[in-house]
Amino acid sequence: MTKQGFGKLASLKEAFEIIFRIVKKTGIEKADIESTNQRVLAEDIFAKIDVPHFRKSAMDGFAVIAEDTFGASNTSPKELRIIESVTAGVMPEKDIKKGECIEITTGAPLPKSANAVLMVEYTEKEDNKLIFYKTVAPGDNVIEIGSDVKSGQLLFEKGAILNPRYLGVLSSQGFSSLNVKKTPNIAYFSSGNEIIDSHTKLVEGKVYDINTRTIVDTLREHGCKVLNLGVVGDDLEQITQAINKNINNADLILLSGGSSLGGEDFMVEAVKQLGKVLVHGIAVKPGKPVIIGEVKGKLVLGLPGYPTSALSNMYTLVLPVIYKMMDSEFKTRQVRAKLSRKIVSTIGRYEFLPVKLEKHQKELLAVPVLKGSSAITSMAESDGYIGIDENTEVLNKDEYIEVNLY
Amino acid sequence: MTKQGFGKLASLKEAFEIIFRIVKKTGIEKADIESTNQRVLAEDIFAKIDVPHFRKSAMDGFAVIAEDTFGASNTSPKELRIIESVTAGVMPEKDIKKGECIEITTGAPLPKSANAVLMVEYTEKEDNKLIFYKTVAPGDNVIEIGSDVKSGQLLFEKGAILNPRYLGVLSSQGFSSLNVKKTPNIAYFSSGNEIIDSHTKLVEGKVYDINTRTIVDTLREHGCKVLNLGVVGDDLEQITQAINKNINNADLILLSGGSSLGGEDFMVEAVKQLGKVLVHGIAVKPGKPVIIGEVKGKLVLGLPGYPTSALSNMYTLVLPVIYKMMDSEFKTRQVRAKLSRKIVSTIGRYEFLPVKLEKHQKELLAVPVLKGSSAITSMAESDGYIGIDENTEVLNKDEYIEVNLY
Repeated sequence: MTKQGFGKLASLKEAFEIIFRIVKKTGIEKADIESTNQRVLAEDIFAKIDVPHFRKSAMDGFAVIAEDTFGASNTSPKELRIIESVTAGVMPEKDIKKGECIEITTGAPLPKSANAVLMVEYTEKEDNKLIFYKTVAPGDNVIEIGSDVKSGQLLFEKGAILNPRYLGVLSSQGFSSLNVKKTPNIAYFSSGNEIIDSHTKLVEGKVYDINTRTIVDTLREHGCKVLNLGVVGDDLEQITQAINKNINNADLILLSGGSSLGGEDFMVEAVKQLGKVLVHGIAVKPGKPVIIGEVKGKLVLGLPGYPTSALSNMYTLVLPVIYKMMDSEFKTRQVRAKLSRKIVSTIGRYEFLPVKLEKHQKELLAVPVLKGSSAITSMAESDGYIGIDENTEVLNKDEYIEVNLY
Repeated sequence: MTKQGFGKLASLKEAFEIIFRIVKKTGIEKADIESTNQRVLAEDIFAKIDVPHFRKSAMDGFAVIAEDTFGASNTSPKELRIIESVTAGVMPEKDIKKGECIEITTGAPLPKSANAVLMVEYTEKEDNKLIFYKTVAPGDNVIEIGSDVKSGQLLFEKGAILNPRYLGVLSSQGFSSLNVKKTPNIAYFSSGNEIIDSHTKLVEGKVYDINTRTIVDTLREHGCKVLNLGVVGDDLEQITQAINKNINNADLILLSGGSSLGGEDFMVEAVKQLGKVLVHGIAVKPGKPVIIGEVKGKLVLGLPGYPTSALSNMYTLVLPVIYKMMDSEFKTRQVRAKLSRKIVSTIGRYEFLPVKLEKHQKELLAVPVLKGSSAITSMAESDGYIGIDENTEVLNKDEYIEVNLY
């Protein structure tokens, strides 16, 4: 008796090794800093200047020699002579001596001998006489040179994913452009004779295409340039043509549908005709029927047609590949939560388990919501997923687990 | 004795009330579903069709009457007659009777009388004879009508922020366009005589503009259309002109710098000349020197120049306003963590405290990283922030708190 079926499944680790032998790292481009948010940094960045690069006032008030203020209070005011007024962006012309002060605004440079700033709220001004009601200690309201960033220090490492806060630090250094990794070009199509585009009238036996939307939008969220080819019929010639026509303009081809074991499975055949199939089936659940192929030295990655399987493979397989191509690493934000019920998983397969997060008294609960790999709503109702490794068989109720947020 | 200073600070709640009296809700636009990721849904959406809208096979195999398989096993195979072969996207022409089956692929419609699908892995085919080694129960490998989505059910509510998973569900319904809220148009500039653009050579007393980068990129991450006006000199005429020239083309004007109490503070004066200042100073820390103004019926929002203050105000004040304008709500992702040290906060002021998350044994620790409101690195080193409400004075070491992720 011969049973039809997948051959030996590749583990996720094996799948990555095979893929990383095919895919090429993307290049580097110099981009205006204005367009680099969420991009991957292509080089280590060291500080060029101290921030601040001069001693400055943290407050609006008066630059003083702290010792001159000792003893001042609400009931016992003291006085100083104002010799200059300096505003942010302008260097003071004079220095102060004992008994003198300089009026100063927030961010303005301190005169050389000043060692503290009296806040304006505790002062009164009469012509060039300052009356004040408070003592300050040396260093009060003074921002020292390099207190935020020291020249020469490593700011961000190659592979870092830029965000507005990192870009703020880089702006303080006067960077107007940055070397970033190019984002991969991906051609995508959905296949399957039952799949129709949302602009088409629905007839019995057909279903609207879901994967184009979930996959293309997820790729774009991660910065990829996607050529969206829409729905390609589940037909050897159409699939072969779609791959062949687009492989030269893309870094990789991603497709979904038609990779199970039925009569309509032309995807494997198409890849075989154009190149070679390296893996058919990976040890993940859901999302087993993955095809890893090589055509003209490029990666062709076939995902299963089931929406949940296709989307879970995006997180377990595709996004890690995308970030690796950019010399970076795909990292999800993780939240610790308590599992709401016992989960039995399959030994030998990595399991992707969508969960909903619920606050319950003072605890965060992770509630599994997988309804079956055909149910797109299970993904929509979830906030993230648990990754259960291939050697884990049971997760117990009330166990604390890490939830990966989408 | 008269002390110069802010008047009574507005609480965050009061600030929102005043702002919401000025700002207008954005309109609604019909957008192609392809461009709606991260947009705010402008209407409740109910399911138009059942998903699936026909009974279909969850597996490649044979549609059978389950009762016909009872008793079959590896050692005792049974047989059925194959009367048709049906693939996904095509309706079967025949129905089955006792003793018959139809070959079927994943996703293909079931014949009327079939109530289970035998997986291909447990079968052998000899011409039109099926030999099989397994029993199936009624319902096995069958996806029932409406099991994922039921026609008429509420799918997503007005105000929901769309994501690839939601869009997958909407695709299953055949939506090719959606009514979404328009995103606000915001004109932004940084002001301050000490502030220079990153393309300029640095001289003593000046600092590079940081806020343009952090604020503009944060707004764009949240979908806003931003007119970036760059650096405007801290000069009454320039500021007045910048506001006056752009107020008609923007839903609101946002600016940073120059709102403290020094001699260079033309922002308040500019707003007064063009309209009115409603609030000067809000009860938050950092970020107190906020100006809320109304010019030609529109909101002018002045943020402090300190990078940490300006950016913390984005999270406490600006983003909540942006989402409210779109009839939605600004929500951060929250993580529960254990506070690494005691925090003393100021009664009467909401405090924004940046924290770094560190895994420590089995616990997630929130480590405060605020170095002072001038330090942009404290934001870059943090993963999120704690919001300490105005009535809380102390958070204890080892207390569990919610961290808002950026």
